[in-house]
Amino acid sequence: MKDYQGYLIDLDGTMYRGNEVIDEAPAFIQELNKRNIDYLFLTNNSSKTQAQVSEKLNQLGIESNQDNVFTTSMATAKYIKQHYPNGRCYCIGEVGLFDAIEREGLTVIDDSDCDVVVMGIDRNISYEKLAKASLAVRNGAAFISTNSDNALPTERGLMPGNGALTSVVSVSTGVEPQFIGKPETIIVEQALEVLGTTQKNTILVGDNYNTDIKAGINSGIDTLMVFTGVTPFEAYESLPVKPTYFIRDLSEWFK
Amino acid sequence: MKDYQGYLIDLDGTMYRGNEVIDEAPAFIQELNKRNIDYLFLTNNSSKTQAQVSEKLNQLGIESNQDNVFTTSMATAKYIKQHYPNGRCYCIGEVGLFDAIEREGLTVIDDSDCDVVVMGIDRNISYEKLAKASLAVRNGAAFISTNSDNALPTERGLMPGNGALTSVVSVSTGVEPQFIGKPETIIVEQALEVLGTTQKNTILVGDNYNTDIKAGINSGIDTLMVFTGVTPFEAYESLPVKPTYFIRDLSEWFK
Repeated sequence: MKDYQGYLIDLDGTMYRGNEVIDEAPAFIQELNKRNIDYLFLTNNSSKTQAQVSEKLNQLGIESNQDNVFTTSMATAKYIKQHYPNGRCYCIGEVGLFDAIEREGLTVIDDSDCDVVVMGIDRNISYEKLAKASLAVRNGAAFISTNSDNALPTERGLMPGNGALTSVVSVSTGVEPQFIGKPETIIVEQALEVLGTTQKNTILVGDNYNTDIKAGINSGIDTLMVFTGVTPFEAYESLPVKPTYFIRDLSEWFK
Repeated sequence: MKDYQGYLIDLDGTMYRGNEVIDEAPAFIQELNKRNIDYLFLTNNSSKTQAQVSEKLNQLGIESNQDNVFTTSMATAKYIKQHYPNGRCYCIGEVGLFDAIEREGLTVIDDSDCDVVVMGIDRNISYEKLAKASLAVRNGAAFISTNSDNALPTERGLMPGNGALTSVVSVSTGVEPQFIGKPETIIVEQALEVLGTTQKNTILVGDNYNTDIKAGINSGIDTLMVFTGVTPFEAYESLPVKPTYFIRDLSEWFK
């Protein structure tokens, strides 16, 4: 176990499952605090604001303030700010996306005559929203999507995720979006910038091979895989590229 | 020009463009009537009923009664009746789809606990509808979609078509639907059954290479391509498999 100075920590499947805390999570975060190690919670959930995510963590008994939270909506807004600082954005999404876009001082318009189309999960999706996004992308607007997750775990089962909603526009226009969230490198690069650590001294902790661990591998940073979420322990053997470390649960790490 | 006994005739781009009749279309249909040749208007538009389509044609000066109209919704309903006669259907679509499903005496339920998921264009699409469809497909329901058109030409530009909306469920679940409309063979087989003609003595007339002409080629029936719609005349040379005949417009056919 290297002496990492920064931790990027996934939420769903790593800190909690739905609305239930994962038993080993609070002590793991306490240990990071005790050791004065910097960390960010890194989530592909674009629907909630930084403050809302932090509140949920606190309610589950995991110490957090909102500066410890970095959502894919925040990474998306930062990316747009860097690449299209004066771009007028047409946004499809929930409060977490609009909040992040506004905090970066970007201009939001409700019109297909925009420079950037941004898509995040929107459970109030409508044909008109999808039509505006498609018309804008056909007219040359940049096309950005918070994350490519196809399925969203809920109490009712796996529901359509943002990747599935985004496919309406990509399939209709033939234009692929720039995804921002895990397993893309963009969210990791943004997070390292916020955390102030480097690729070499930072580790990414997560349960989902296809998003968390691949994001680490793609970004050239070490990874710690836990088996408290979606990827079952039995799948480890067949993983094409292994994580740097793997443990059954977080209690095994700081032993 | 063979002596065809049956004609399958595309609508948009062949008989009209949006709300404008194509000049040569009314005389072409009159000639079919004069010669006592059977024909069906064959459309991938699932949103309208047989009666609504017929009414539009009459308003544009094209003789039609509703028995001459065969929509992809009708083909879809017939297909379900044949393969899942007692299937409880969860339908996403507009009046044309619901009308066709009811006319075949199929059972419609508003629940993901269904046997068949049917998707047609729905400009009142919602997350809840897409969620129910995804849950049902994950639970093993058959997955059927009226047509794979990705873009819908409108006065505002190209909007998302049913193929694009269907992709939410296929991308989210990993299950590909059975498409029914052109270029699939199912709609052509159903139409031949209704028309009472055979592959050998029937010809398909249309402007769109990727839907109309491919449907004919896939079904082993002759095709007549016109250049009054989406595929430009300049594209003819590069078409991988040529239509049986091609003409600039319908006035050239019965000379």
